[in-house]
Amino acid sequence: MTTRTVFFISDGTGITAETFGNAILAQFDMTSRHVRLPFIDTIDKAHQAVRQINHTAEVENRKPLVFTTIVNVEVLQFFEQHCNGMLLDMFGTFVRPLEVELGIKSHHRVGRFSDISKSQAYNDRIAAINFSLEHDDGQSDRDLQQSDVILVGVSRSGKTPTSLYLAMQYGLKASNYPLIPEDFDRNHLPPALVPHRAKLFGLTINPERLSEIRNERRPNSRYASLENCRMEVAAAESMMRRSGIRWLSTTTKSIEEIATTILQEVRPERLTY
Amino acid sequence: MTTRTVFFISDGTGITAETFGNAILAQFDMTSRHVRLPFIDTIDKAHQAVRQINHTAEVENRKPLVFTTIVNVEVLQFFEQHCNGMLLDMFGTFVRPLEVELGIKSHHRVGRFSDISKSQAYNDRIAAINFSLEHDDGQSDRDLQQSDVILVGVSRSGKTPTSLYLAMQYGLKASNYPLIPEDFDRNHLPPALVPHRAKLFGLTINPERLSEIRNERRPNSRYASLENCRMEVAAAESMMRRSGIRWLSTTTKSIEEIATTILQEVRPERLTY
Repeated sequence: MTTRTVFFISDGTGITAETFGNAILAQFDMTSRHVRLPFIDTIDKAHQAVRQINHTAEVENRKPLVFTTIVNVEVLQFFEQHCNGMLLDMFGTFVRPLEVELGIKSHHRVGRFSDISKSQAYNDRIAAINFSLEHDDGQSDRDLQQSDVILVGVSRSGKTPTSLYLAMQYGLKASNYPLIPEDFDRNHLPPALVPHRAKLFGLTINPERLSEIRNERRPNSRYASLENCRMEVAAAESMMRRSGIRWLSTTTKSIEEIATTILQEVRPERLTY
Repeated sequence: MTTRTVFFISDGTGITAETFGNAILAQFDMTSRHVRLPFIDTIDKAHQAVRQINHTAEVENRKPLVFTTIVNVEVLQFFEQHCNGMLLDMFGTFVRPLEVELGIKSHHRVGRFSDISKSQAYNDRIAAINFSLEHDDGQSDRDLQQSDVILVGVSRSGKTPTSLYLAMQYGLKASNYPLIPEDFDRNHLPPALVPHRAKLFGLTINPERLSEIRNERRPNSRYASLENCRMEVAAAESMMRRSGIRWLSTTTKSIEEIATTILQEVRPERLTY
């Protein structure tokens, strides 16, 4: 199989460069060695980075792939002129045509995060993370009222990582409402949830997978037994179906896929679609 | 100020399209209305999306910006042929030149997340999230031993969101070790931390900002008072300086910037740089 050294270079954190590069690389059957070089915001640092890239090119006798999100024009030009890797440059490629279309110049400011602490959107995100942490399995009505989204499902169906991702990526206040055996005995939606039906989203999971996950935490417990998992999942799904709650199975899905689907379905008011 | 409607279109979750588009848009002083259209993976869905874009173009009498990460060739061609927006297409732009450079064809598979549950990297990420959640302010030596990174700092200096971000983005097991008044009285590094010096990273914060944050949670408490915050921050910084712990101030930094800096400094073994 083909293998290459891949550099991710940015004058900011490099997180965008990495997201960008990984998405492109995922289209190829190849292995790669990754080198992250964030905060490359001076010609001096660019010089060092280029030396490292060119050294790699020489040693490996083929071009490293170099994914860049460099805003500073001089730094970018330095790479264009001196780097012996294959330059895949996101900003240069798209910002210039956009300047033409919009009829305005880009301001070439590094990082969408600078002096972030004053940004409302950023503070909302941090508040949402704290909210999700503090309302994990929280069940007071006040918590539910303040939530943008309420995830329901049996224990270990994926509610916690999903709610954290919704908070971190979208600044949404997500709380979790675990369905427990008492809820199944009652055989209808827990009364606390009824006023919040529009915000509810259910997560379910294949009982075999659930049993595996629970066994890692409490080996050989009744809680983790396949029989009990089958019973809980069947009861939770039947309750959600009867109550008209939208739900999906997390078994083969990533938290990114789960979160995106929830957003599409719940369309919380705080997000402008 | 210029304003545009911006579409993010993908045959997957659209998270990459959004990261990509937002990074580009951050280079322009403009306001924008965002429309996310994930999971556009058939010609039928593309048809609906194009209708929505073209309708917007007509109503607003200017081209919407359309950021796409579409893998499926037919779907992408449908957009290229029928969409009246300005198409900014990440995959088409970079994947084709890469095919030439690598001498292999891309496989045009949607989503780097499909059947993710079997991926070791993904399971490591979920395990790291759970670890960080369960070891927030956890202090047993076993926890510290298993950690890839240990964040130290006074209460509310930013440890928790940072450790969650490290887990979610990089699959790192990050635990938090809050510095409390008893640690300052003792005036040297808490003994539990001494064996793990290489994994330690300190977070500090401007006392005025800390007092603001603490006041939101416990108004008018001694804990939140500016005097106490000044004392704690000074004591923590002096302890970190004396113990040779690397640290940074989180006051004006985003969790992305904090996390990236920590990675650069600590270079945990589990990450291949």
